[in-house]
Amino acid sequence: MPETALDLTLDAPALTADLVDFRSVSGEEKPLADAIEQALRRLPHLTVDRHGNNVVARTALGRGERVILAGHIDTVPIADNVPSRLDGNGVLWGCGTSDMKSGVALQLRIAATVPEPNRDITFVFYDNEEVAAHLSGLGRVAEAHPEWLEGDFAVLLEPSDAQVEGGCQGTLRVILRTAGERAHSARSWMGSNAIHTVAPILARLAAYEPRRPVVDGLEYREGLNAVRIEGGAANNVIPDACAVVVNYRYAPDRSMAEAEAHVREVFAECDIAEFIVDDHTGGALPGLSHPAAAAFMEAVGGTAQPKFGWTDVARFSALGVPAVNYGPGDALFAHKRDEHVAVEKITHCEQRLREWLTA
Amino acid sequence: MPETALDLTLDAPALTADLVDFRSVSGEEKPLADAIEQALRRLPHLTVDRHGNNVVARTALGRGERVILAGHIDTVPIADNVPSRLDGNGVLWGCGTSDMKSGVALQLRIAATVPEPNRDITFVFYDNEEVAAHLSGLGRVAEAHPEWLEGDFAVLLEPSDAQVEGGCQGTLRVILRTAGERAHSARSWMGSNAIHTVAPILARLAAYEPRRPVVDGLEYREGLNAVRIEGGAANNVIPDACAVVVNYRYAPDRSMAEAEAHVREVFAECDIAEFIVDDHTGGALPGLSHPAAAAFMEAVGGTAQPKFGWTDVARFSALGVPAVNYGPGDALFAHKRDEHVAVEKITHCEQRLREWLTA
Repeated sequence: MPETALDLTLDAPALTADLVDFRSVSGEEKPLADAIEQALRRLPHLTVDRHGNNVVARTALGRGERVILAGHIDTVPIADNVPSRLDGNGVLWGCGTSDMKSGVALQLRIAATVPEPNRDITFVFYDNEEVAAHLSGLGRVAEAHPEWLEGDFAVLLEPSDAQVEGGCQGTLRVILRTAGERAHSARSWMGSNAIHTVAPILARLAAYEPRRPVVDGLEYREGLNAVRIEGGAANNVIPDACAVVVNYRYAPDRSMAEAEAHVREVFAECDIAEFIVDDHTGGALPGLSHPAAAAFMEAVGGTAQPKFGWTDVARFSALGVPAVNYGPGDALFAHKRDEHVAVEKITHCEQRLREWLTA
Repeated sequence: MPETALDLTLDAPALTADLVDFRSVSGEEKPLADAIEQALRRLPHLTVDRHGNNVVARTALGRGERVILAGHIDTVPIADNVPSRLDGNGVLWGCGTSDMKSGVALQLRIAATVPEPNRDITFVFYDNEEVAAHLSGLGRVAEAHPEWLEGDFAVLLEPSDAQVEGGCQGTLRVILRTAGERAHSARSWMGSNAIHTVAPILARLAAYEPRRPVVDGLEYREGLNAVRIEGGAANNVIPDACAVVVNYRYAPDRSMAEAEAHVREVFAECDIAEFIVDDHTGGALPGLSHPAAAAFMEAVGGTAQPKFGWTDVARFSALGVPAVNYGPGDALFAHKRDEHVAVEKITHCEQRLREWLTA
């Protein structure tokens, strides 16, 4: 078998190892996308489409529901941790083992071995998830072929330690600029200090009590934090400018407009010269009350956890598709040199997904 | 006359113009130092010494008092404002007109035309005043030949708009570092925010009431200011470090140790990981109660003003010589493209100095 082909008859852990050894750092996904497309085109029950290095495969059985299994095929840069290595304790080590080639292996295994699922399935393999949001293959497919992503419920096989993580929090970044008037610091009364003007902004941040709202049964935890600050012109000059970059992470019961209004209100009494919305991405509701999601929860078991960070479930949410994260990897080890996944987690998740799609 | 010679028979304004046209940006003072040394060696009543590009000339008449007239011969870089230009309103324009070749012209005129002063005089011409303090020619002479700088009272002919400016304020720069613990900003409760920890530091600065103490009859104005702030690692990371650079300008009734203790006390209740003294130069008492200073004040008239910025009077003060600034230039126009001096101020200061030294 040529090294560029994928063997979907391997079990999921062995297929994960092959996928890890098949390097696909962001921007260099083409060979792997080619191999995935080639392998899927051999399966007669699937219709396969391709857009760039993104591959979408679908059953068309006319079931009452359509669910999506999605995963990104890229990894962060390799840190001397490829090829993969299986140790004596059933742990597979290497770049992408957790984030998220073990998840991609499950997508491929379900695609290859469940020709007649109880729900129609759409498999989405996309590129450039680990880099700038505007490069994301999922975003590009959503733009070019939104109909490929239609469905009632989506599972992203991102590392979640075999737990269901519902929805995700929104993230708003604002830049608060204060202004002053320059003067020599030996005659400070001739000027006005823009760094001192920041004092009440930081005081509000330090005193801020973040919400912990319960949404769809999941408790989220918000945060309002200065992530950067910069001000000053020279060591003997009263500064005329200072900027604080504030990041608001908020629960998905708040809309983007509400989130922005909230931050404006927090700093309403501060002397801010410029309030700049630098970046803003809304959250995603867990959508666990949807029947497809409820059936999924029943099949996989456990208790759903809230997702604090932003993930691609928000993209599905924006398309009107409730989505969760559920994958065998552990997010705590993603992007690390010692990235790894337990083989039993891969097998466990595969069984649960299979049950849900065949019961 | 070769262009590298100085003609001390010119009146002070004409000599100022010649000195301005004789370029001597910091680091390039040698030709001018040579010309000054040469001109002074022609005067039989003076003993002339040289150290580097610093020239010291002294009378030795055995008077009861010795006074020092000092000035730096370098300028900031020329800003398209040389050669000098005398306009129809009696204003001389050009680099160094104010800071301080008009003062140097007065030193040279007094040296050439007052062979038998009522007080022994030491004339000090030094280089590298406009650059880093450790390069200062005055500092180097003080180190190599402290006996050349002995005296009862010193006048620095720095631009002071023909007013006496007494003493100078000290300047202390400290860096206050706060520490925290990094975490992803989506899980901010896992970390601790070093920028938020700065809040009470800035609150104290914003609320600080600077002193305005009267010393030797002069009212000083202190200032305690943040001049720089910097913190943060990335837009999605709770920052583990932040640094505030604080500049304390303090009146000369406070010693260096007292100034540092004061700043430590202001921030005593703040959570500071590191308190770094980055730079510290003490102030100088006005010394106006000294008999030589009193006689000087009587001769030049007017009311002495406090000097807020740090100047070389502090170097004389450190050598035990009370010192003041008194020169025809206007400090507000020093270092500017439109630097200038009024000819009548040059003439006025020359007359007053002459009266003081011959009465």
